[in-house]
Amino acid sequence: MVESMVMNRQGAFTQAERDAVYRVIRERRDVRSGYLPRPLENDVLIRLLNAAHMAPSVGLMQPWRFIVVRDLAQRARVHEIFQRAREAAAALYAGDRRELYARLKLEALLEAPQHLCVVCDTNSEQGHTLGRHSMPEMPAYSVVCAIQNLWLAARTEGIGVGWVSILDPAAMKDLLRIPAEVDLVAYLCIGYVEEFAPRPDLERVGWEERASLLSVLREEFFDRSAQPGEKIP
Amino acid sequence: MVESMVMNRQGAFTQAERDAVYRVIRERRDVRSGYLPRPLENDVLIRLLNAAHMAPSVGLMQPWRFIVVRDLAQRARVHEIFQRAREAAAALYAGDRRELYARLKLEALLEAPQHLCVVCDTNSEQGHTLGRHSMPEMPAYSVVCAIQNLWLAARTEGIGVGWVSILDPAAMKDLLRIPAEVDLVAYLCIGYVEEFAPRPDLERVGWEERASLLSVLREEFFDRSAQPGEKIP
Repeated sequence: MVESMVMNRQGAFTQAERDAVYRVIRERRDVRSGYLPRPLENDVLIRLLNAAHMAPSVGLMQPWRFIVVRDLAQRARVHEIFQRAREAAAALYAGDRRELYARLKLEALLEAPQHLCVVCDTNSEQGHTLGRHSMPEMPAYSVVCAIQNLWLAARTEGIGVGWVSILDPAAMKDLLRIPAEVDLVAYLCIGYVEEFAPRPDLERVGWEERASLLSVLREEFFDRSAQPGEKIP
Repeated sequence: MVESMVMNRQGAFTQAERDAVYRVIRERRDVRSGYLPRPLENDVLIRLLNAAHMAPSVGLMQPWRFIVVRDLAQRARVHEIFQRAREAAAALYAGDRRELYARLKLEALLEAPQHLCVVCDTNSEQGHTLGRHSMPEMPAYSVVCAIQNLWLAARTEGIGVGWVSILDPAAMKDLLRIPAEVDLVAYLCIGYVEEFAPRPDLERVGWEERASLLSVLREEFFDRSAQPGEKIP
């Protein structure tokens, strides 16, 4: 009875629509290989960017700025910045873990026909600083909400997204002429792919296993674990 | 021809599924009023948390920890922490803007029958620090991806989510017994609602207007604006 009231309410989603949203959440992947050379059509790219642009933002600040990078010479420079950061990080691992690190495919900067650099204009007056006084990280968090919107929308279009964080932010800002008060939040590879992997790459190659939901769930206080009900996996 | 290849590829989304995902992105709202007193059923809450738990994370780190807060006395203490932060912020506005600030409905901490505090275990060894060396903010950003997943899933279930950032993080950590090395990322009101507003509240009450996509779009460099093509709104 209660359920049917929910279903009939104005603005309610059908079960099929709900299933589609849960499906995209489940089947979204961080894609680091298998990009096709065909570039995104302009209207498709705009659809994805509009999905990002509809994200929540603190005080309606909309602090995200999107830099579309298509030029191959520019992409190659980003790849060099990645290589340096990768080598620096490799030195921090030892033994088997180092060998595994060396084999990881961590980016597709030269294969993906376009990149998206997503930055945060932290000083923007839009939103009149609402919600930012006690938590100054909020603008950056709004930008990440936009990225996750884009990531999910892309999956429905057969488009892969891969977030590359092994990059020196200062070198990236220099290359893309990003001013000091604007923060690099994410650098994404984007492009059509043949397929999406059934499991995360890092799980498949044995870098890490996924944790259970129960292990990250607490009740009332951080130090009070949730009780394993029937429904908790 | 190319399009139909995409459509027929294994794992492709149908047009109806794609429409549902774009719909939820468009119709998701930050909800600060209109919560119903009926608490979430356990299995519904677990579905939402599982959606969050399927988010991308740096190195498969899954640094999110979810604290479900239902106790009314605890919610009232959070509300007191909010009131203090709200008063402190009010002092920063003057004139009409201050009056408008005083009228804003910024939270529903006493009405929403459950809260979700989402924190980031920044020192977790899971993921073996992959992707975190050059960008130490990455764990917090992974947590925000999880929040956006939950926010979208909730919308399809007729459940509102409101992110309250006008809170002193130190006071919140003290109240919820969150250790020093664990960061507060978000404090969310969650609950069934009668309806979702067609536009963001802050736009409706005249706090801020939404920017055009074109104004946040750049090509190749931060200082190179995108050219207004036919398709760019």
